[in-house]
Amino acid sequence: MVIKFICTGKTQEAYLITGIQLYIKRLKHYVRFEFIEIDIKKPLPDKLQQLKSESQSILKHCQPGDTLIFLDDKGKSYTSIKFAEWISKQLHKPGNLIFVAGSAYGFDAALVKDSPSISLSSFTFTHQMVRLIFVEQLYRAFTIIKNEKYHHE
Amino acid sequence: MVIKFICTGKTQEAYLITGIQLYIKRLKHYVRFEFIEIDIKKPLPDKLQQLKSESQSILKHCQPGDTLIFLDDKGKSYTSIKFAEWISKQLHKPGNLIFVAGSAYGFDAALVKDSPSISLSSFTFTHQMVRLIFVEQLYRAFTIIKNEKYHHE
Repeated sequence: MVIKFICTGKTQEAYLITGIQLYIKRLKHYVRFEFIEIDIKKPLPDKLQQLKSESQSILKHCQPGDTLIFLDDKGKSYTSIKFAEWISKQLHKPGNLIFVAGSAYGFDAALVKDSPSISLSSFTFTHQMVRLIFVEQLYRAFTIIKNEKYHHE
Repeated sequence: MVIKFICTGKTQEAYLITGIQLYIKRLKHYVRFEFIEIDIKKPLPDKLQQLKSESQSILKHCQPGDTLIFLDDKGKSYTSIKFAEWISKQLHKPGNLIFVAGSAYGFDAALVKDSPSISLSSFTFTHQMVRLIFVEQLYRAFTIIKNEKYHHE
């Protein structure tokens, strides 16, 4: 089983890339993990067409039987402990676990249909910073699953 | 009126310092802002004494009439818009606006008594990363107050 984290658009800020890579390195001690950035070179003028195009790029990294979870302001909120419990249950299921963070446009409606979504906060974060926050949260989840000392309530 | 953001302990990670400084620079276009890190050189062995000592250091930066707001997992959650509205109202009040982020120990009970607290998320973030997330959120609040294009719903 692989956990993939697919993001739309390249991470721009060097300081965020440093932080993201730090947590990816730590995360790989616990799980097979892939960080995938979908490069949007020239956004299409039509928003819906652009979302459709991003959706096709995202689906290239998915296989039948994979579980997709979208990071979305309107998604379900978790505590770090509850999220770790949820991840722990997914580890025993067949297929890969694929988290998707969208662009400023959001997601193609057909792509997210029937899929669960997670909200990191009631506050809105930048699309770039969400990547850092989420990889740290994934890392935290595995330290909780392994009963390590990283997380404090 | 000055907005102060008081954090317990030095920021360690260089990539976070870069990000925090970036948003502080942007924030200063809108408001007088001070980022204050309270240096804890040798934490006291007793947790309550340590919190009392941190509390005294925090209060050195506060004056009567200032409003203190604590960043706390169990605090009130806001959307970025609601937070901007709240900040906007505070700008017309006398005294400074002082946000406080604690250490892993939390806060001295006597310090937080009767003060409002804000929760950035139901997830737990690192004490260091909270600083970056919060300065971005403060910057975002001012772009919302000024009706600028940074924030998208």
